[in-house]
Amino acid sequence: MTSEIRQNKATKRWVIFAPSRGKRPIDFKRQESKNQRLPAVDKDCPFCPGNEKSMPPIIMELPGPEGNQWQTRVVPNKFPALTPDGNNVRYRRGLYLAMPGYGRHEVIIESPVHNRRITQMTPNEVGVIIETYHRRYVNVMKQNWNLMTLIFRNHGGRAGTSLAHPHSQIIVTGMVPSYIRWREERSQYYFDESGRCVYCDILEQEAQERQRVIVENETFLAFVPFAAEVPFEIWIMPTKHQACFGDLSDQEKPGLAAILQDCLARLQRKLNDPDYNYIINTAARYRAGEPQLHWYLQIRPRLTTQAEFEIGSGISINPSLPEEDAAFLRQD
Amino acid sequence: MTSEIRQNKATKRWVIFAPSRGKRPIDFKRQESKNQRLPAVDKDCPFCPGNEKSMPPIIMELPGPEGNQWQTRVVPNKFPALTPDGNNVRYRRGLYLAMPGYGRHEVIIESPVHNRRITQMTPNEVGVIIETYHRRYVNVMKQNWNLMTLIFRNHGGRAGTSLAHPHSQIIVTGMVPSYIRWREERSQYYFDESGRCVYCDILEQEAQERQRVIVENETFLAFVPFAAEVPFEIWIMPTKHQACFGDLSDQEKPGLAAILQDCLARLQRKLNDPDYNYIINTAARYRAGEPQLHWYLQIRPRLTTQAEFEIGSGISINPSLPEEDAAFLRQD
Repeated sequence: MTSEIRQNKATKRWVIFAPSRGKRPIDFKRQESKNQRLPAVDKDCPFCPGNEKSMPPIIMELPGPEGNQWQTRVVPNKFPALTPDGNNVRYRRGLYLAMPGYGRHEVIIESPVHNRRITQMTPNEVGVIIETYHRRYVNVMKQNWNLMTLIFRNHGGRAGTSLAHPHSQIIVTGMVPSYIRWREERSQYYFDESGRCVYCDILEQEAQERQRVIVENETFLAFVPFAAEVPFEIWIMPTKHQACFGDLSDQEKPGLAAILQDCLARLQRKLNDPDYNYIINTAARYRAGEPQLHWYLQIRPRLTTQAEFEIGSGISINPSLPEEDAAFLRQD
Repeated sequence: MTSEIRQNKATKRWVIFAPSRGKRPIDFKRQESKNQRLPAVDKDCPFCPGNEKSMPPIIMELPGPEGNQWQTRVVPNKFPALTPDGNNVRYRRGLYLAMPGYGRHEVIIESPVHNRRITQMTPNEVGVIIETYHRRYVNVMKQNWNLMTLIFRNHGGRAGTSLAHPHSQIIVTGMVPSYIRWREERSQYYFDESGRCVYCDILEQEAQERQRVIVENETFLAFVPFAAEVPFEIWIMPTKHQACFGDLSDQEKPGLAAILQDCLARLQRKLNDPDYNYIINTAARYRAGEPQLHWYLQIRPRLTTQAEFEIGSGISINPSLPEEDAAFLRQD
């Protein structure tokens, strides 16, 4: 196949699929596995039990499925990008616009055990992580001046993490970035043209075509998007229309936990434990509940390096085809 | 200083300045210098003289300032993201939109000498590189279906390059990506509001304030932008209004060569030879010559790793303040 340029239907971003670049000596598989040598407790890790004094005050914690001790904890990030002090009133600096760094930046510790990975957990333990995400999301969004809440996970050094202890992060902002506003506006245009949620239409086509589907259950579909920006990118999407992550019901949580764990296990097993990021893309405050938006969890393995063309043009170059990536991840 | 959120006046992108994150154990300086151990000729390098047979046909070449042999060569990229075969007619794949991978992807070899770096060249040699950029740009844009030409350079492994021989790249596309359209529309809105080119206004404020200026000459200003996305980001901008890189005059070329070399030398000397990218941001075909756009060369050192919050929200987190970065680079 010669190369093809594909459009992300939801954001209108273009992605160049350049299979010939895949012939370059890039090895998608990691050189060696990591983390497996980690101890169960690290006396220098601020997230390990016993080291609480080096940690900021605990915001919330949830017990494990056995109920015997805490499994997850939410704490303020010790090196926060944003803090809840101050406000989000904008001011001028000559021509320029700025505002105080208002927001929240929190860490979700996913287990007391230093070397416990999501892929090793019981389904119920992963469920506790999802429950923590959801409770914290709902709680933070009770405050009107929190406009956007992003829950994300960086796994491994290439993905930007500096701590091995299993954790996710939450960042809350007092403004909606143009990148997200753009995505929401595109969905609005689509809805105005077709009367449909673009993500519901994507789900319908993926479920019919099946060639990019990895795995599904009663409530979620996991697939490689048509215009995936990186090799083995995965979108996990609720099959029922749901604009906001906050609307996730108790009945839907086990399905999300199961499919997330399944996808992460496939990446780990089939690609030799790659570094990855994931994020929950959800509606900003004043779009929550709208008929044209749809939240989803997006996994991006870190197998390639973004070079300047991609950064400077906003066009990704993906050496790997979504249909082939999905087939590879689908096989047991 | 507590953290501040700043807006890029031209694109409306927000950047979080989080100095407290700078206290994390991140070392901006590279561990060791590279390239200095490279040989002058590498028999396995496809860009070294004598290895032409492993290289695609030469598109153009320019002699060095002494006129005795070629200094720069333009060749097709052996692993192209886009190729000039085919067309850019869009087609549907069910709901989705796609098109053939039409475009050009070329390499500019900057010197026959394998270990010759821009920072080691004479001003005239750097001038030959600029001349090559410009001639190729003008030539490619003669064809109406080439809508966007991006010239960029990836230096070092973290910046995404796989070949050590000094080179830049050109990618030409048959469409204008939404990212660039967005930037151009923002400038249009600004022009409609104020009657001014936003970049000319930025230049005026930077030249007055001076605290983010690194160096200047008769035709160019080099400064750290107010909302720099990464530490030590540099914009090199023509001080006279000029929408399109193709409009660069012969009189202006030496000034660009000199200030580019100066900025790269400062990075190399003061930050222990960091990996970096640069790109020439210029108008798409149908915007060239417009009063509201302004081309500039943007340098991004690769000192930090983008994590998922930045990728997923489009908001950068910069642990380093532009005013301090500029002061550091300004000192001799």
